[in-house]
Amino acid sequence: MSKQRSGNFFEDFHLGQRFAHATPRTLGLADQSLYIALTGSRACLHSADTTAQALGFARRPIEDLLVFNTAFGKTVPDISLNAVANLGYAELRFLEPVFDGDTLGVESEVIGLKENANRRSGVVYVRSSARNQHGREVLGWVRWVMVHKRDAAAACGEPVLPSLAAHVAPDALALQVFGEQVASAPRVTGCSDQYEDYAVGERIDHPAAMTLNDSDHSLATRLYQNTAKAHFDAATMARSPMQRRLVYGGHVMSICKALAYDGFENLLSILAIHGGRHVAPTFAGDTLRCATQVVECLDFEGAPVGALRLRMVGAKNVEATEQIRFTAPSEPPDPHTVLDLDLTVALPKKRIHRQHP
Amino acid sequence: MSKQRSGNFFEDFHLGQRFAHATPRTLGLADQSLYIALTGSRACLHSADTTAQALGFARRPIEDLLVFNTAFGKTVPDISLNAVANLGYAELRFLEPVFDGDTLGVESEVIGLKENANRRSGVVYVRSSARNQHGREVLGWVRWVMVHKRDAAAACGEPVLPSLAAHVAPDALALQVFGEQVASAPRVTGCSDQYEDYAVGERIDHPAAMTLNDSDHSLATRLYQNTAKAHFDAATMARSPMQRRLVYGGHVMSICKALAYDGFENLLSILAIHGGRHVAPTFAGDTLRCATQVVECLDFEGAPVGALRLRMVGAKNVEATEQIRFTAPSEPPDPHTVLDLDLTVALPKKRIHRQHP
Amino acid sequence: MSKQRSGNFFEDFHLGQRFAHATPRTLGLADQSLYIALTGSRACLHSADTTAQALGFARRPIEDLLVFNTAFGKTVPDISLNAVANLGYAELRFLEPVFDGDTLGVESEVIGLKENANRRSGVVYVRSSARNQHGREVLGWVRWVMVHKRDAAAACGEPVLPSLAAHVAPDALALQVFGEQVASAPRVTGCSDQYEDYAVGERIDHPAAMTLNDSDHSLATRLYQNTAKAHFDAATMARSPMQRRLVYGGHVMSICKALAYDGFENLLSILAIHGGRHVAPTFAGDTLRCATQVVECLDFEGAPVGALRLRMVGAKNVEATEQIRFTAPSEPPDPHTVLDLDLTVALPKKRIHRQHP
Repeated sequence: MSKQRSGNFFEDFHLGQRFAHATPRTLGLADQSLYIALTGSRACLHSADTTAQALGFARRPIEDLLVFNTAFGKTVPDISLNAVANLGYAELRFLEPVFDGDTLGVESEVIGLKENANRRSGVVYVRSSARNQHGREVLGWVRWVMVHKRDAAAACGEPVLPSLAAHVAPDALALQVFGEQVASAPRVTGCSDQYEDYAVGERIDHPAAMTLNDSDHSLATRLYQNTAKAHFDAATMARSPMQRRLVYGGHVMSICKALAYDGFENLLSILAIHGGRHVAPTFAGDTLRCATQVVECLDFEGAPVGALRLRMVGAKNVEATEQIRFTAPSEPPDPHTVLDLDLTVALPKKRIHRQHP
Repeated sequence: MSKQRSGNFFEDFHLGQRFAHATPRTLGLADQSLYIALTGSRACLHSADTTAQALGFARRPIEDLLVFNTAFGKTVPDISLNAVANLGYAELRFLEPVFDGDTLGVESEVIGLKENANRRSGVVYVRSSARNQHGREVLGWVRWVMVHKRDAAAACGEPVLPSLAAHVAPDALALQVFGEQVASAPRVTGCSDQYEDYAVGERIDHPAAMTLNDSDHSLATRLYQNTAKAHFDAATMARSPMQRRLVYGGHVMSICKALAYDGFENLLSILAIHGGRHVAPTFAGDTLRCATQVVECLDFEGAPVGALRLRMVGAKNVEATEQIRFTAPSEPPDPHTVLDLDLTVALPKKRIHRQHP
Repeated sequence: MSKQRSGNFFEDFHLGQRFAHATPRTLGLADQSLYIALTGSRACLHSADTTAQALGFARRPIEDLLVFNTAFGKTVPDISLNAVANLGYAELRFLEPVFDGDTLGVESEVIGLKENANRRSGVVYVRSSARNQHGREVLGWVRWVMVHKRDAAAACGEPVLPSLAAHVAPDALALQVFGEQVASAPRVTGCSDQYEDYAVGERIDHPAAMTLNDSDHSLATRLYQNTAKAHFDAATMARSPMQRRLVYGGHVMSICKALAYDGFENLLSILAIHGGRHVAPTFAGDTLRCATQVVECLDFEGAPVGALRLRMVGAKNVEATEQIRFTAPSEPPDPHTVLDLDLTVALPKKRIHRQHP
C-alpha cells in the first residue's frame, strides 16, 4: 500500500511502454499573459486578437513554446523524475494551433533504451504526442534522457536505438495552418523583412539581453506543472555539483525566442525543432543573449509562408551579442553557450509563386 | 476628517460586531493559472475543463485554497492589520464550488474577545463567511488572532470565549458537491489509489520539495489582496525580531497541498479544516517539504466519495521528507515544523455501498 | 539587408514624424489579475464584476495604470530604446474605459526636438495615443525623453519646443464615463469618504509599505512588453553608474497608486496626469511608501463625480510615511523621493448639485 512515489528508474522502462501522462491541462489567455510576463514575448500573432484575425485566425492562438513547455512538463513525472540530464530532442513538430480553452493531453511511448557502461544509468528515448480535446495531435516530438538506475545490479535488456530523422522533412511541416492573410503581418509589426529578405548564411545578433531571476524561472516551470526537482529544491541542489537551482531548459528556449523578436518581427511561429542541446546549465543571475544564423530557406511553391531553418544560439554573460560564437560540430562548445537549437520557423512571403497550369 | 487609516486595535472590537469586508473580488481562470504558477498545483479537477467535465462539473472550479486565501485576505484590513499573530483556525468548511467569474464577498462577526493579562493586546475570535454573487455561502470559518491594543490603559469588557467544535461534524461536510462521475478520476490521473486504499495510521512522505522566493510569496499574497505588513515591508521587518519578510501562512498551506499531490493524486478537494497552526515562521530561501498521516477514514454510505481526515505537516530545511516528525500534543514542536494542519479531504470511492432497502 | 536592430537615435527623429508602434496588444482579465498580483491593487471598480455593475459599468474595466503602462511600453522600441532618461509627462488623459478583450494600438508623433549643448544627445517630445479596436482613443499623453545621438557630429535642425498645457483643462476630463450609480461605491468599500470629504491642503499618509523584488518589476515590465534595457539587463547595468537593474518608473507609479488605496478607498480612476517626475531611481530591495496632498477640488455641477487634483509623492526607504517631505519647487528634492506626480482622480459625490432651471 506504499504511496511513496519515487518515479521511474531506468530498469522500470521497457520498449513499447506507453504512458498517458497525468493530468490534462487546459490552456488559456491567462497562461498566454503569464507567458508574456515571464518571457517578454512580443510575437505579433499571440499579442492581439485583432492581429490574429488580420492574419487569418479566429483569435490569438497560444504561443508555440508555451504549448511545448506545457506538454513537455506533463512527461516529467513519468519519464524524467530521476533524470541525470536531458540529452536531446528530435522530430518536434507543431501541427495545429492551440486556442484559449483547449485542453492538452499528452502520451509517450518508449522507443529506445540503452544502459550505460557503468550500469548506474541508461538512456531512455520516448516519442511524445500532445492532443487537444478533439483528439487532434497538436505537437509531437522525441526526446532522450539519461535516467538513474534504482539498482545498478538490475538486469537490463539489449540496447535498442531508435531510428530518428536528422531533420523534420519539409513536407511534414504543418504549413496549412497559414492562409494568404499572413501577408498583412508587416502592417502590424511595422517591419518589412519577410521570408525573401533572409539569406542562407546571414547572422542576426539580437540586441536585447535578459537577466534571469529565481522567481521567474520557477514561476514558469510551475506554470508548466513540470516537477523536475533541480528547478525547485535549492537545498538539495546546494549539495549537488550545480550548487543551486537549475533553470529549466525550456525557459531558456522561451527567453531566446523572445529575444529573437528583434530581427524576426514577422516570424509567425515555430514549425519544427530538429534538434537542440542545452550545452551548459543556466542559473538565476545569468544574463542571456541570443544570435541566430539562417541555415536554409524553403520556398514552398504556392504557399503563403516560407520556412527558414535557423541555428539559434543562446549564451550567458557575454558583454555583447556579437561575442556569441557559432562553433563547428568538431569544436568544443564555447563556454558561454547554453543553448544550440536547430529549428524551422514560418514567415510570410512577399510573393506567392504558383505553378503554371 | 483624518484619513490616516490605522486599522482596528483590540479595544475597537466588540462582541457581535459585524464587518462587510472591502472589496468584493471576482475570481477567474486568470487567478487559477497564477495559482498554478505560484504553487505548482497539479490538482486534476482544477487543471482541465475536460477533467472537470468527466468528474461531473460544468467546468474547472477554482481551487479550494485559492478561494480560502482570497476570502481570508479580505478580512485582514478589518481584523488583523494590527495583529501580533494568527493563532488558530476552526470549523472551516468548503460548501460550494466557485467557478470562473464568480464574485466573493466576505463578512465577519466577532464571536469572542479576551484581553491578555499584560493588557497590551488581546485575542479576537471572528466567524467569517464568503458568499458568491448569488448570496450562497461558499466558505465559512472561524479564526482567532492576537491583536495589539492602541492604548494599554483602555478598558475592555469581560472575556467571552466562543464555543468551538473540536472538528467539523461529518454530516456538515458538503459531500453533495460530488456525483458518481468522480469515479473516473483514476483514468485521468493514472493513479489507482482511491478512498479505500488509504488506512488509518498510514503515513505518506511526499517526495518533492519547494524553495520559496520573496517574489513568489509576495505575488501570491498580493493576488489575495491581503495587506498584512509582515509580508511586504522588508524595512520594518528588518527592525523586528523576524529580521525579514514573513511568508504568508496561507501560501505555506498552498505549497504543502501542492507537494501532497504525489500520494494523493485522486484527491478531489478539501472539505474542511478542523484546526491548524503555523508552528514557526517561513522565510524566502526556506525549502518546504510535507508529510501526511491518515487520521480517520469516513465512508459515507451511498456517497460517491469518502472523506480522509489527515494530519498534514509542513517542515522547512529538512534533508528528506522522512525526517519530518509528527510530534504528540504533549511534546514540544519539532524545530523544523512550520505547519501542522488537521483537515478532511474528499477522494473518489472504488465501490459505492448502498443501504439495503 | 542588415537586421541588427539598434533603435532610433536622436538624429533619426524629425518633426512631424509618426510611428504606428508594434505590436497591438489585447488586454484582458488575465492582465488585470496579474496586475493585482504585481501591485497589490485593491481598487474597487477593477476587483469585481458585481462592483463594476453596481457602479454602472457592464463589467470590470481594466485598471488605468495597467492601460497606461501597456500603451507606454509600446512606444519604447521606437522612441526610447536609446534613451538616457525619461524626463517628463504632460497632458495625459484617460478617455474611455478599456474592457476585457479590447485591443490597444498605439501611435506617436514627434512634436518637439532639441539637441543638447554637448551634441551627444537631445530631447525628443512625442504625443502618443492609444486607440481600441473600434478606433476610439482611450488614452493620450505627451512625454519627453533624452535620447543619445548615434554620431555626435550629426547635424540636427533648430530646436523646436512644443507648447504644452501646464495642466489638463477641467473641461477636457472624461467625466462622462461615470454615471449616477457611482454613488454606491461606499456600500462596497465600507468607507464613507467621498469627494466632499477631501479638502485642499489636506495631506494623507498612506500607511502601507511595499518592498520591491527584481522578479516583480521585471515581470511587470515584460507584461507591458516594454523593452528598455535598463530594467532587464543586469550585466550591462552592473557596468553603469546605476550598478544594477532600474525599476521601471511606471511600476513605481502603480505601486504608489495601490498604496494610496488606504485613504482613497472610493477613488474610481485617474482622469489625468498633468506632470510627473521620476525624481530618483528605484531598485529591487527598496521599500516604497506614498503620501498624497489634495491640491484642488473640482466640483462639476451636475456631475456624479468630483475631481481631486493630487500631488502624490512616492519615497523609498523612509521609516514612516510621515517622514515623506513635500518639497517646494524652489527646494532640492528630498533624497528619499522617487516619484512626484501631479494627477487628477475621480471620486463619487455625496450630493449632485444641479443648476436651477
